[in-house]
Amino acid sequence: MSEEASTEQRPSPSADPTLGLGNAASFEVQGDFERFNQRDDIFCRSFWDPEVRSEATDRFYATYREALANWRAVDGFTQRDYALRNASWHVTDVFAELKESEDRREGYLDELTVLRDAPDEQVEYESPQAAAAEIKRVAQLFGADLVGITDYDERWLYTHKYSREREAPKPNEQPDGLTHVIVVAKAMDHSLIETVPSALSGAATGWGYSADTLTLLALSQYIRNLGYQAIPTLNDTALAVPYAIKAGLGEYGKLGLVITPEFGPRVRFGKIFTDLPMELDLPKTFGVKEFCDSCNLCVDACPVGAIAGESPSEKVYNRSNIVGIKKWSVDAESCFGFWERQNSDCSICVRVCPYNRGWPDWIGRGWRRLAGSPLRRVAYWLDRIVGGGRRRAASWWWDQTAD
Amino acid sequence: MSEEASTEQRPSPSADPTLGLGNAASFEVQGDFERFNQRDDIFCRSFWDPEVRSEATDRFYATYREALANWRAVDGFTQRDYALRNASWHVTDVFAELKESEDRREGYLDELTVLRDAPDEQVEYESPQAAAAEIKRVAQLFGADLVGITDYDERWLYTHKYSREREAPKPNEQPDGLTHVIVVAKAMDHSLIETVPSALSGAATGWGYSADTLTLLALSQYIRNLGYQAIPTLNDTALAVPYAIKAGLGEYGKLGLVITPEFGPRVRFGKIFTDLPMELDLPKTFGVKEFCDSCNLCVDACPVGAIAGESPSEKVYNRSNIVGIKKWSVDAESCFGFWERQNSDCSICVRVCPYNRGWPDWIGRGWRRLAGSPLRRVAYWLDRIVGGGRRRAASWWWDQTAD
Repeated sequence: MSEEASTEQRPSPSADPTLGLGNAASFEVQGDFERFNQRDDIFCRSFWDPEVRSEATDRFYATYREALANWRAVDGFTQRDYALRNASWHVTDVFAELKESEDRREGYLDELTVLRDAPDEQVEYESPQAAAAEIKRVAQLFGADLVGITDYDERWLYTHKYSREREAPKPNEQPDGLTHVIVVAKAMDHSLIETVPSALSGAATGWGYSADTLTLLALSQYIRNLGYQAIPTLNDTALAVPYAIKAGLGEYGKLGLVITPEFGPRVRFGKIFTDLPMELDLPKTFGVKEFCDSCNLCVDACPVGAIAGESPSEKVYNRSNIVGIKKWSVDAESCFGFWERQNSDCSICVRVCPYNRGWPDWIGRGWRRLAGSPLRRVAYWLDRIVGGGRRRAASWWWDQTAD
Repeated sequence: MSEEASTEQRPSPSADPTLGLGNAASFEVQGDFERFNQRDDIFCRSFWDPEVRSEATDRFYATYREALANWRAVDGFTQRDYALRNASWHVTDVFAELKESEDRREGYLDELTVLRDAPDEQVEYESPQAAAAEIKRVAQLFGADLVGITDYDERWLYTHKYSREREAPKPNEQPDGLTHVIVVAKAMDHSLIETVPSALSGAATGWGYSADTLTLLALSQYIRNLGYQAIPTLNDTALAVPYAIKAGLGEYGKLGLVITPEFGPRVRFGKIFTDLPMELDLPKTFGVKEFCDSCNLCVDACPVGAIAGESPSEKVYNRSNIVGIKKWSVDAESCFGFWERQNSDCSICVRVCPYNRGWPDWIGRGWRRLAGSPLRRVAYWLDRIVGGGRRRAASWWWDQTAD
């Protein structure tokens, strides 16, 4: 998918604690690793956990559905800013609410299931390579900006899903025979992210989700029509980060997100579980681990200090951290606390990350090569000199015309 | 939206028989004009009209939902070709089937209604120009390739919608106060259209619809969140062609479709009815009428002679033609007869049209300038010399890798 990608084939890295990256890993499974229970993620906790839930969190969610009683007059938080943010989420929410009567919130807490059944006949491929190439072509037709393929790896499945209705865990049951996971990424709008923090910038997130939903449904239906299983998942069912790393889409970064060569951390991931045999992509490195080691822009920019500047460790801030992985960790309680106070999500760490730039391709390629070399401090300073990652006013975004 | 677009403002062309184009019009309302009843479109007729409905038409529709009992081995009509086509339509179909229990097929026969209510407060704009510019910017964020704005013009609303359940007309009622129509266009995939006729190429159509559905829902929800009405429509409620012409998206062409400067006839249209006051776009011409006059590529390529080579007239082949418009007309019965025989839609006329080319922007701009000048025959022959519009094998499409 990019100049950094490798196409060499090698054995499945499923059991590998480094996700196949060896000494280059920045996300390393330890002996005391425990699979994650979705009820412990900060969004589920903001419903059942009195340590997180408050009037502020209830209002935070309400602003996604209802108009605020008094629109704030602050640039980036006016009626049209919320109007755009909420509209961008709309299609994702439609699917999330479609089966609420069955105690499902598809895309957030449960797999998407609005799919037709498969025919009995299976299309057979000449080789797993041919199948992988075809799936990637179709994923791109259906709007994916990046696609990677890896093997099914149970470590990253939630031990339990979460029932919003009962505010309790529920089984995370998947059918037998799933062998492969397709990870798709949708880039978020660069200019919207430049306005973070703002309610406006939340439209980048929401549109990433809605566009991802469309891609996941269409691609899954395609795989079903070929006669195979396909289970599309968004935030539900499994962790995206390790699957995206395993599928070669990017490296783990200090801000707790996957940094892709093409868009940095400015992406939303979706995953499709399937039994279609395909060639696996290899995890790849392009110098992110070393660059993050010496760059603290996200650490310094976070208004609530949720990103540690420390070396990768097994540090656990609270129950929202996964146990037994040596990596950079983030304090989700502090992070989400900022979201609830401003009534919108925050991506300041994404905005300031030097890998998130809207350069033309050839400049981006050159910069990444420099950032991945021993001259990485030069890359860092070049980004500083040109003012990369500075905040723009929401009104600046609105003032741009359609042409 | 393009070099050919004008931004000059002038009075509403609503009552104008030429849609505001005067002598340049290629779509001209006559004194005996009658509004169209959706039951007479060829798709509705393929259910209620024994002159159109047959085992073949039933099978045609069935192939969009169920696997064929015996996959044809012909290139372009194999299982994976149908698999892709049907997957591309999937999300459109989800919305079409969501309210079938209420005798609605949203997007095909009824407006899309899966939207949240609006707040009481209305965002006010400095000027209709500012509102128009903002709506266009948001439409593009939400995936529209082209956007135009025109005024509400009742002539193009269906007299009646069609009930699939009762196989009979039903009222086409719209709320009071609608004043504006936003027309969005989504370009269809160029390389898929190169493989027409094939089941594979139907994926270009289906994906155009699904992507349009996402854009229409998100943009309509945005307008609602601003405090205004917004009614998203796809094939339902009103004719797209005259609205697209009025909104300045393109000119009417010999093949019976709107030809846009940017993509030729290779687009799908959606429309949003609203009461948000916005500046109107002007209809525009860029020489299509004169070019079509001297070009017969679509006429000659149509395997069933459904496109007349004659001069614009009020010709009516059958009840699927609108009465009282002087224009190039198409025989929908012959056209759809070809679709049903090959179990997929056909866009040969789109493929061969010289305005549908995948040129880089600057070449396309130069070619259009030539095609719009007295040297249009040179433009025609240039297209012939480079082999524009030739059919490619479906297997050629599949053989391209993702990179």
